[in-house]
Amino acid sequence: MRIRILVTGGTFDKEYDELSGRLFFRETHLPEMLRRGRCLLDVAAETVMMIDSLELDDAGRARIVARARDCEERSVVITHGTDTMVETARALAGARLEGKTLVLTGAMVPYAFGSSDGLFNLGSALSFAQVLPPGVYVAMNGQHFAWDCVRKNTASGCFEAV
Amino acid sequence: MRIRILVTGGTFDKEYDELSGRLFFRETHLPEMLRRGRCLLDVAAETVMMIDSLELDDAGRARIVARARDCEERSVVITHGTDTMVETARALAGARLEGKTLVLTGAMVPYAFGSSDGLFNLGSALSFAQVLPPGVYVAMNGQHFAWDCVRKNTASGCFEAV
Amino acid sequence: MRIRILVTGGTFDKEYDELSGRLFFRETHLPEMLRRGRCLLDVAAETVMMIDSLELDDAGRARIVARARDCEERSVVITHGTDTMVETARALAGARLEGKTLVLTGAMVPYAFGSSDGLFNLGSALSFAQVLPPGVYVAMNGQHFAWDCVRKNTASGCFEAV
Amino acid sequence: MRIRILVTGGTFDKEYDELSGRLFFRETHLPEMLRRGRCLLDVAAETVMMIDSLELDDAGRARIVARARDCEERSVVITHGTDTMVETARALAGARLEGKTLVLTGAMVPYAFGSSDGLFNLGSALSFAQVLPPGVYVAMNGQHFAWDCVRKNTASGCFEAV
Repeated sequence: MRIRILVTGGTFDKEYDELSGRLFFRETHLPEMLRRGRCLLDVAAETVMMIDSLELDDAGRARIVARARDCEERSVVITHGTDTMVETARALAGARLEGKTLVLTGAMVPYAFGSSDGLFNLGSALSFAQVLPPGVYVAMNGQHFAWDCVRKNTASGCFEAV
Repeated sequence: MRIRILVTGGTFDKEYDELSGRLFFRETHLPEMLRRGRCLLDVAAETVMMIDSLELDDAGRARIVARARDCEERSVVITHGTDTMVETARALAGARLEGKTLVLTGAMVPYAFGSSDGLFNLGSALSFAQVLPPGVYVAMNGQHFAWDCVRKNTASGCFEAV
Repeated sequence: MRIRILVTGGTFDKEYDELSGRLFFRETHLPEMLRRGRCLLDVAAETVMMIDSLELDDAGRARIVARARDCEERSVVITHGTDTMVETARALAGARLEGKTLVLTGAMVPYAFGSSDGLFNLGSALSFAQVLPPGVYVAMNGQHFAWDCVRKNTASGCFEAV
Repeated sequence: MRIRILVTGGTFDKEYDELSGRLFFRETHLPEMLRRGRCLLDVAAETVMMIDSLELDDAGRARIVARARDCEERSVVITHGTDTMVETARALAGARLEGKTLVLTGAMVPYAFGSSDGLFNLGSALSFAQVLPPGVYVAMNGQHFAWDCVRKNTASGCFEAV
């Protein structure tokens, strides 16, 4: 079983630009993270976009949905900014991709910053993607949520059931 | 659903003793790892032992089995050295703990060493423990294996199906 | 010989706020850095301010100069944002603090981000402060510069002689 | 002014072998450390040996002395295991390399392990090497010691004046 990973950016992949003092995107850290996790899953990764999810619009969401629909894998992990992760989950659910297990994950702290939750979340999302039945899920904080039962608590930065 | 985590040591929890230049055990890093992963699962963790799994004997294995049997949680993650992880999985399977999902995991590099796979594996094991049916599993390299279908390839350091 | 360390903020001490996604100041990381360096110098550290050096005005500079003047130590290290480090060096030189060796240093990447140059620079600045003759210096990139012979190259992020 | 760096191994450069669970030497981390420190000094680095300093014998010491003598630079930093750093300092002093400033440094924790003091010590040693008068020194714990006034306290792991 091969797993498709769609990279879309988010805090997960942000870096610090030492000249401007601002956060920015360069390449995804996903390959390095898979190496560090000694991941031996059959994984096909692609970068769909590198964007702060607050800047993601309907057209961008449509591109993510299209890639999730068109890829041949039945298990798909999508790395995504946390701010609008639930909106993208809803868009994916609306596309009714029968037979596919779609798991969105991200990070509260960039992987590049040492104290990141990204590696934990990636291990979690890849695992859920292998064993959950078809559907659209958010995997954060060690938990998984069906797309229509979750929200990000913006005060705590945590995902919670609704 | 609460998850029991049984800590038994292994590379996962080794540290560097700067006076002797040797690796040793102090406290488990599990609580720090759960914080870093922003883990919000209901988790009950306990240290059963802190041991290199090459030094684990039948009596030690019996203690691990006893704790896995006696704890009230139906989902149990066991952190364990990789060298004899499969032997302990077999001992757990032999105990026929009906209705329990038992997931063993570990690390090839100590969590304290920066380049560790431990955080990835912990996220993975906690996720598998929530959704796999009752049984005894090894979760390493992003994969999960039934206890009787896995071995550690000592040349590569990876777990593989048999 | 005791060394005074005056903390003023700068990239050196910035952290990532995982709720806002922005950089901010909390406590200085200096004590942790000294522990990590196993530093056994007799050091008296104080936080004068926690500020991005682009926001440092004449009144703020006057406070730094006052503390450098009033402290009893003859060796002083000042952690400082790199953008206006040279301006503060000039203000310190203008105060003509006879008999004092004043060394400014900072970082291009926050200490908290793993890939930081901060620890290297701190080791360097503390060493220069012990052995350079009285004067005002900038210690960055492994080098030391007299206050009136240095500028920050904003294109490269490096300090260079003028 | 160019600085010669002689790499000899020591904890500074040890790595963790995830197959054997033991520490070993591969390549030196010095170039990565210089990059991380954004070091812009004119540095010529060479690996003389990669050895635990407890295994360093008279012939090995003679090789280090020979390289320190034969290199054309007047400032030399030597990375070295801490256990016999003082013995090598003595051998260097015995060679009476007139006009040369020789600074030995090392680390209590391998650079590769995240919590290392190596980067701090390297910044310190390179700085002392630029400004101390000719002689043989040990730079550890933020301090510098003349070769005949220092010992490693094996109980604390710290260097101290004698």
